[in-house]
Amino acid sequence: MRTKSIIAAPEIEALIALLAKVPGLGPRSARRAALQLMKRKDQLMVPLAAALSEAAEKVRPCSNCGALDTQDPCALCSAPDRDDGLICVVAEVGDVWALERAGAFKGRYHVLGGTLSALDGVRPDDLRIPRLLERAGAPGVREIILALSATVDGQTTAHYLAERLHSLNITISRLSHGVPVGGELDLLDDGTLFAALQSRRST
Amino acid sequence: MRTKSIIAAPEIEALIALLAKVPGLGPRSARRAALQLMKRKDQLMVPLAAALSEAAEKVRPCSNCGALDTQDPCALCSAPDRDDGLICVVAEVGDVWALERAGAFKGRYHVLGGTLSALDGVRPDDLRIPRLLERAGAPGVREIILALSATVDGQTTAHYLAERLHSLNITISRLSHGVPVGGELDLLDDGTLFAALQSRRST
Repeated sequence: MRTKSIIAAPEIEALIALLAKVPGLGPRSARRAALQLMKRKDQLMVPLAAALSEAAEKVRPCSNCGALDTQDPCALCSAPDRDDGLICVVAEVGDVWALERAGAFKGRYHVLGGTLSALDGVRPDDLRIPRLLERAGAPGVREIILALSATVDGQTTAHYLAERLHSLNITISRLSHGVPVGGELDLLDDGTLFAALQSRRST
Repeated sequence: MRTKSIIAAPEIEALIALLAKVPGLGPRSARRAALQLMKRKDQLMVPLAAALSEAAEKVRPCSNCGALDTQDPCALCSAPDRDDGLICVVAEVGDVWALERAGAFKGRYHVLGGTLSALDGVRPDDLRIPRLLERAGAPGVREIILALSATVDGQTTAHYLAERLHSLNITISRLSHGVPVGGELDLLDDGTLFAALQSRRST
């Protein structure tokens, strides 16, 4: 007999507990997800298990830039047609994907693996900063773009990196603040509006 | 070289595509989930893959009641201390779990596997109704509780079942107080479920 707190078989409870840890799913939605997965066993559950195993086995962080790929150096670092003189610094791999979807950047990337945070105790040593300094100092590098979030932690990190990179004789740039494309003016927060006004350009 | 639409390695894209089909996750949250899973490979990704494989391999619908378990008949059907005279009819396995969490019912269950739906083309033959009629006709069965959602389809199904079960000389009851009109059973809080079971009415 099962105790009252365990409703389903232990294998199902274990699956629900793990699904509940997946970002985007909570305890309730994990239960629904588990049921749907078991209902669609052959179309979804078995392929998902296989895809997780395969990715877990093959995907590794790139030893050069920190992005995730099945090859090392990754496809972005080894692509022959990208500009080696430009390095775009981002916090997470998801930011690389976002920039690649936008298709606006044809240089190289560097993934820090997070941002500095006094609150969460993330210090410079915890991020992929030494490798960035090495890469930034290589011959031919013209510009480092600090593409970090406009949050306190993101801007702290950008400020710290700008100081560390200052001695190298290269351009350090940041993403511009402003009105999001397609965004409505009267829905914007004051900080963004202020920044958009400050950095206005003549047309 | 990769085409523009494929940003990450094919193994990662395949994982994201499958995660996006999990109820509760969409294309965007699937990407976030994939990144977090790869970041927490040993704590989350590998165990989740194993849990999915194990559940896919071991969990089967109970041949008696239709609930999911690793044993057949399931733990609820084979528990010696439950009342064989009461059968609670629900649409989905999640409803069994919801009722078990509420802890208000100590009889047996019967999972239909859905509700009748003219719109989705679900007919009586598509549900586990023949087995229910068999079970309801067995000696010793005193009452059938139709614990179906207070939706049009749920109530249509309850009405249909009440008619089919009418000729048997047993009580047919439905959940009553506490079920919000239009509400789904497995999203209800325990207290409401408890009240609904306590105040069930015979039809």
